[in-house]
Amino acid sequence: MFPRNPEIYFILPSFHLKIMIQRIRGTRDFGPEEMWKRNWLALQLRDLARAYGYREVLTPVMESAELFVAKSGPGVLNEMYSFRDKGNREIALRPELTAPIIRFFVNDLQDSPLPLKFFSISNCFRYEEPQQGRYREFFHFDVEIIGSSEPAADAELLLLSNEVCSRLGLKNYSYRIGHVGIVRGLLDAAGLDKARQPEFLHLIDKGKRDEAEALLLSSDVGRGDVQQIMHVCNVKGDLSVLYGMDFEGVDYLRSVLEIAQSGGLHNYRVDLGVVRGLDYYTGLVFEVDFPELGAEKQICGGGAYRLSHLFGGPDVPATGFAFGFDRLLIACERSRALPEEPPLDAFVITLPGVSYTEGLEIAGMLRKSGLSVETDLMNRNLSKALKYASQRRARFALIIGEKEKDEGVVLLRNMMSGEEARLPAAELYARIKV
Amino acid sequence: MFPRNPEIYFILPSFHLKIMIQRIRGTRDFGPEEMWKRNWLALQLRDLARAYGYREVLTPVMESAELFVAKSGPGVLNEMYSFRDKGNREIALRPELTAPIIRFFVNDLQDSPLPLKFFSISNCFRYEEPQQGRYREFFHFDVEIIGSSEPAADAELLLLSNEVCSRLGLKNYSYRIGHVGIVRGLLDAAGLDKARQPEFLHLIDKGKRDEAEALLLSSDVGRGDVQQIMHVCNVKGDLSVLYGMDFEGVDYLRSVLEIAQSGGLHNYRVDLGVVRGLDYYTGLVFEVDFPELGAEKQICGGGAYRLSHLFGGPDVPATGFAFGFDRLLIACERSRALPEEPPLDAFVITLPGVSYTEGLEIAGMLRKSGLSVETDLMNRNLSKALKYASQRRARFALIIGEKEKDEGVVLLRNMMSGEEARLPAAELYARIKV
Repeated sequence: MFPRNPEIYFILPSFHLKIMIQRIRGTRDFGPEEMWKRNWLALQLRDLARAYGYREVLTPVMESAELFVAKSGPGVLNEMYSFRDKGNREIALRPELTAPIIRFFVNDLQDSPLPLKFFSISNCFRYEEPQQGRYREFFHFDVEIIGSSEPAADAELLLLSNEVCSRLGLKNYSYRIGHVGIVRGLLDAAGLDKARQPEFLHLIDKGKRDEAEALLLSSDVGRGDVQQIMHVCNVKGDLSVLYGMDFEGVDYLRSVLEIAQSGGLHNYRVDLGVVRGLDYYTGLVFEVDFPELGAEKQICGGGAYRLSHLFGGPDVPATGFAFGFDRLLIACERSRALPEEPPLDAFVITLPGVSYTEGLEIAGMLRKSGLSVETDLMNRNLSKALKYASQRRARFALIIGEKEKDEGVVLLRNMMSGEEARLPAAELYARIKV
Repeated sequence: MFPRNPEIYFILPSFHLKIMIQRIRGTRDFGPEEMWKRNWLALQLRDLARAYGYREVLTPVMESAELFVAKSGPGVLNEMYSFRDKGNREIALRPELTAPIIRFFVNDLQDSPLPLKFFSISNCFRYEEPQQGRYREFFHFDVEIIGSSEPAADAELLLLSNEVCSRLGLKNYSYRIGHVGIVRGLLDAAGLDKARQPEFLHLIDKGKRDEAEALLLSSDVGRGDVQQIMHVCNVKGDLSVLYGMDFEGVDYLRSVLEIAQSGGLHNYRVDLGVVRGLDYYTGLVFEVDFPELGAEKQICGGGAYRLSHLFGGPDVPATGFAFGFDRLLIACERSRALPEEPPLDAFVITLPGVSYTEGLEIAGMLRKSGLSVETDLMNRNLSKALKYASQRRARFALIIGEKEKDEGVVLLRNMMSGEEARLPAAELYARIKV
């Protein structure tokens, strides 16, 4: 049988063979060097969070889409990976970790003594055009306090996030700290319809002051009120800018900052125009900037909020923050040298005439002592095996030939210096360990 | 305006308020105690894999669905979470980690010196009815060697997986080890159409020997060949069952097992009926059972395979295994006591008349020394604060009242014994550290 279209017949298979299946755009593979750094960073974050009494939790990657709609409104559906599963339920890949942790609280932890102090380090997803520093799969270091509406709770988050930055050696980072309740209180007092307030706050959040002012003027807000509101949204400076201000929320914010200052937070600026884009924030809001990252300078954001009752739980206050793990890692790299993946301690080579299992025995002994050891899995000759050991960045090669076997020794070769020594197996560990 | 149907009008909102948003069926939230154990297990696995020279990698949760179709055939679409993204691309949540790691190799690592030895610990997804020990989001500890087809590589995986089990203290686990090439070679020699071989192997894998035999008999396979094939699929026992067998693959399997035995693997049984359900296996296949888990007794599976060329890369051999992380953790718990989340070291309480920041200073000092310390974030009175400290399993309470402040001491209360002491701050660490 001759195929009807021989060209397609022959071209299709080879075409198929050459197409390389690619990772999905906006996602990343992390190789060993990168993973070493990421694990190192996660370890630092775990240690710090635990020092403050935070305990690690982990929620599923998949959640009901309604969870995030309840939190952020239906617009979030356009920014999430969401899909209907085979049972026609709308599933979302979590875009952040706060809502899932509060959902966990609502489902299982309502009877726990409060506050609950949790942290989580895990991956999140968003469906948007990938760009410099923004990925479709990214990672958050998320910290939440559930159950406290005291200034001490908000201050603790400022102090913990500050200690994260300072302990990691970040240079030139700074806080912008506001209180969304202050602006909301003024909008209420001025009679701006609750339904229009989010729009105003979004405009302020985006820095569109003129449009925000126009919104007020086009509403029933009096000119004096408009001036006052626009003035308050522009209040920036140190703690002293809050003295003499007599609006709801100002005293609270002052208490938070006084505690935070006494605990060592100084590199901040009050900015009452920081209102963050999301409607569920109720009080303190803050952002941490690392200016060297330009458009991606914001490495952390947080604040006080209420979500539990939206998910069917009790109406409890909560406060939290999230670091962008990927950005935080870049900020670390820009600020200091990061620990590198250690090299392989030893590569074991058995020469012809010596059984592979002789080398395996040496390797096993050294592995049990805590060293990292490879044996040659390719049945290579000496020069090729040494070349691989060098590419693999092994610190030492251990060579066992017939001569060594007869003498009961191993030839230890320092791969950096080329120095060699012939030692009984029992003496290897002491020579190899760092 | 009176609503047309007042019942619905009033019932709907309250109905909404009471509906609790639930986690998705078949997924889990991990609380702090569970996370402590999971982190502990991950650390053990990392340490062991690194001792053998394996390096950690991490691939994205989302992959092109075609990756898994190329590996396992279109049937896999029914068992995966897959969906079309907004660009109409078919996306899958990875059901396992092998294909993504090989895809990573094909995309970025073809020029690396071989073998590449990688491991990964991460979450996978499958869309099937949740049941005891089977979740829709689950975790794999995956280990791969890319580039070697030597017995030493396969033996290393047997030895590493064995060391995982033994170092974790697993009781009564055992290996079943086969070589799918032996049975395939016999099917080829007997003239069974390549297209029908997977069907036969699937039946053997499921233990449906009668149906497998019927399949051969209904094909053009001679009666003598059928007998021989069914006999070989039933070969079980120690290494000696392979002596005297003269089929392709037998020598290779013997070499693997001789190395593995010399490296300490003894709790295994040759079982040539172990062919694993998946078509891409080419040589060694093995499974580790922990019988106490009943229907979920298989805690690990692995083998030699070729996938790279299916993804558009070079045709390189590879071999690997995956432990079910969740099952492995259960097997650990059934075998031994696991380390528990340590209690909070200290809970700091400041009494009326003493500033909260006095306590914060003490807490900060102790945290810097490596202790885990909480301060009271709820502004509670002494008895309520002590109750919380006790529920929170704090080892010590540190109480600062006006009297203590005046005397320059802190009241240290052992929460287990009730013992109390009054100490200067500088002496606290020595008394609290374990």
